[in-house]
Amino acid sequence: MAVKIPRGTQDILPGEVEKWQYIERIAEEICDKFQYKGIRTPIFEHTELFERGVGDTTDIVQKEMYTFTDKGDRSLTLRPEGTAAVVRSFVENKMYGDPNQPVKLFYSGPMFRYERPQSGRYRQFVQFGVEAIGSEDPAIDAEVISLVMSIYRKVGLKNIQLVINSLGDQESRIAHREALIQHFQPRIDEFCSDCQNRLEKNPLRILDCKKDRDHELMNSAPSILQYLNESSRQYFEKVKHYLQLLNIEFVVDPTLVRGLDYYNHTAFEIMSNAEGFGAITTLCGGGRYHGLVKQMGGPEIPGIGFAFSIERLLSALEAEGVELPISKGIDCYIVSLGDKAADYTVKLLQDLREAGFSAERDYQQRKMKAQMKAADRLQARFVAILGEDELNSQIINLKNMESGEQKELSLNQFIEEFCQIVEGK
Amino acid sequence: MAVKIPRGTQDILPGEVEKWQYIERIAEEICDKFQYKGIRTPIFEHTELFERGVGDTTDIVQKEMYTFTDKGDRSLTLRPEGTAAVVRSFVENKMYGDPNQPVKLFYSGPMFRYERPQSGRYRQFVQFGVEAIGSEDPAIDAEVISLVMSIYRKVGLKNIQLVINSLGDQESRIAHREALIQHFQPRIDEFCSDCQNRLEKNPLRILDCKKDRDHELMNSAPSILQYLNESSRQYFEKVKHYLQLLNIEFVVDPTLVRGLDYYNHTAFEIMSNAEGFGAITTLCGGGRYHGLVKQMGGPEIPGIGFAFSIERLLSALEAEGVELPISKGIDCYIVSLGDKAADYTVKLLQDLREAGFSAERDYQQRKMKAQMKAADRLQARFVAILGEDELNSQIINLKNMESGEQKELSLNQFIEEFCQIVEGK
Repeated sequence: MAVKIPRGTQDILPGEVEKWQYIERIAEEICDKFQYKGIRTPIFEHTELFERGVGDTTDIVQKEMYTFTDKGDRSLTLRPEGTAAVVRSFVENKMYGDPNQPVKLFYSGPMFRYERPQSGRYRQFVQFGVEAIGSEDPAIDAEVISLVMSIYRKVGLKNIQLVINSLGDQESRIAHREALIQHFQPRIDEFCSDCQNRLEKNPLRILDCKKDRDHELMNSAPSILQYLNESSRQYFEKVKHYLQLLNIEFVVDPTLVRGLDYYNHTAFEIMSNAEGFGAITTLCGGGRYHGLVKQMGGPEIPGIGFAFSIERLLSALEAEGVELPISKGIDCYIVSLGDKAADYTVKLLQDLREAGFSAERDYQQRKMKAQMKAADRLQARFVAILGEDELNSQIINLKNMESGEQKELSLNQFIEEFCQIVEGK
Repeated sequence: MAVKIPRGTQDILPGEVEKWQYIERIAEEICDKFQYKGIRTPIFEHTELFERGVGDTTDIVQKEMYTFTDKGDRSLTLRPEGTAAVVRSFVENKMYGDPNQPVKLFYSGPMFRYERPQSGRYRQFVQFGVEAIGSEDPAIDAEVISLVMSIYRKVGLKNIQLVINSLGDQESRIAHREALIQHFQPRIDEFCSDCQNRLEKNPLRILDCKKDRDHELMNSAPSILQYLNESSRQYFEKVKHYLQLLNIEFVVDPTLVRGLDYYNHTAFEIMSNAEGFGAITTLCGGGRYHGLVKQMGGPEIPGIGFAFSIERLLSALEAEGVELPISKGIDCYIVSLGDKAADYTVKLLQDLREAGFSAERDYQQRKMKAQMKAADRLQARFVAILGEDELNSQIINLKNMESGEQKELSLNQFIEEFCQIVEGK
């Protein structure tokens, strides 16, 4: 009996994997322009890191983590997201001592959540994200947003909408929290038991409740924007001003909130409106945080970041019918016939590849016709034919598969002549 | 208290991570020339996969695996190597039905072994590898070896040695096995208890024993090469012949063996002789296998592959003093002074980046001198200075940091003029 792939995971196979490589490459290139530097943290961390950094009241930590004990009796967890580990590394490597602040980092790699597998949702998925840690300049908020918009635009996504909000500073959040409690308290017994628990602990999360979302008190709940103090209001104005300067369209949605205490000021999401994607879908979430670095044992400095799943970006691209410019086809296929040609083929193939061409040959001792078919399947731009006749005359027959043109090249000057033909096109 | 990184793992930080990206890029590019296609399998697999595919008598499976039970009560294991999962995927996705054989695949990603952490040895490390499954043409053996040699040469490694051997086909291996048993049996009580167990199970592994390696019977043990039958001998001759055609130097080492039953014919290793690396170190191991695909539930077809750790390749490059061509420095740093300049800076920075330049600015409200220092640290090729004077005259001062030359550019044509200057260099 064959062993199968674990439930909720997928193999990314040839034909698909090139799309992932393309998107990762674009994202890395744009990060280079924006001067965000790569960081790679381990696949697993001490479980405590996520309990502290993601929050032990969240669904992720309570229900979805892959937690296990290693042979040294440590509780380890496969990372469910990227920020906690990047902040852990920022603190552990004392990056707050770097003279240039903020420290701007990006990461890309597999994350793990034990969720019910659904179409397009996997237990292992790839997240790309950035963190800019060490500055509270609103220009950084705009830069981070501009970075992800640049990636989305560059890969060809069109139907996207940026939604932003401000959660204010701590003072503003406390004022808003009080207002929320006063708003819900009189009728809290009409809400689910989870919401009743949330009322005192974290009333903001009531707004996220899926069970009670149609309750009439939801729509009339006080908005954070009404409770921003002056400096928070100014901060938000500056972020919006910079986005306008950068020609980045956005809508403000005061119901866009983040449940965890350490989020503040700017929160944002990017949604896809692509037809054929069904409901509007969140592609990317991000925001500013304060206190997370300190919670991880570092100084009290703020950060901002975002993350998006590459799986979901690919779904959005597909829904929009965007064809990624993945190079297809190979430069040259060598059709070789007979034992004598084998030695030449081994060498010619190597010469082609060393000269920078992608090249392939037959390894199945197939006949001429079957080899030509293989060349077709590989979308070869040129086919070089080496049979007994050619060997006797010390030539190779080169066929341009687009034009159908054929040409005889000298066997011992094949590479030089091939280069000339390809470049002369 | 800060949460630390798990023991035996490492963060790959800015300044280092670019080396990894560079090597992975080179390896991918060369795989493209050779027409090996990427495949990504999950980080974890069902534990049974490795028990079957790596072998349940190996140290890896017995001692070194990260095995855990998920919330669905499955026994999962973080992959300790890449071949088993690639073959699992080959079978599960019926790639043996592809008209072009062999199917040529490459992978790159983290692997996990619970070993005692040592200098340069981590519990999470990155392996790059390829598998060509579905052909027993000796030209494929030469191609696979040539592929890894091309990667090593391209990244600049010089002091490497290819060591090859043949393990023959099954008939040859049985004959050799009998000879080994006859050789060791009379004095097996002089060997360690592990070797005494190995005698009947797998006498080949006695040759790998670290405890008994100085026993006089070791050197005089019968060599597999003496027991190759005619077709195995011819196969090995062809592999060597192709390597010679490709100008790839090698030495034959008949003691290079593989403990597992499904290895056959070609086995190879690439060693580093770099001074300063201490002992000779194996960088890459590979070989041909038969029966693994069938064991995984597929048809009886052969494969060949190799794997190397990127960590160890980087150590070898360092030992050889090879400097990787990692681009350092940014194209332009914008020094901006005063609140009025902030808006322009946000926009100019974006324009530079969209035009394809890497660009940075100050986010710490530093003075001119500190900003110039920051530009130096970032090895900026140009510094654009925008202060109140410049704003009043609607110009920007551009300084070429290499030549020291300064030039005034018009503020609203900055990008156009900047492009001209950079391209005109």
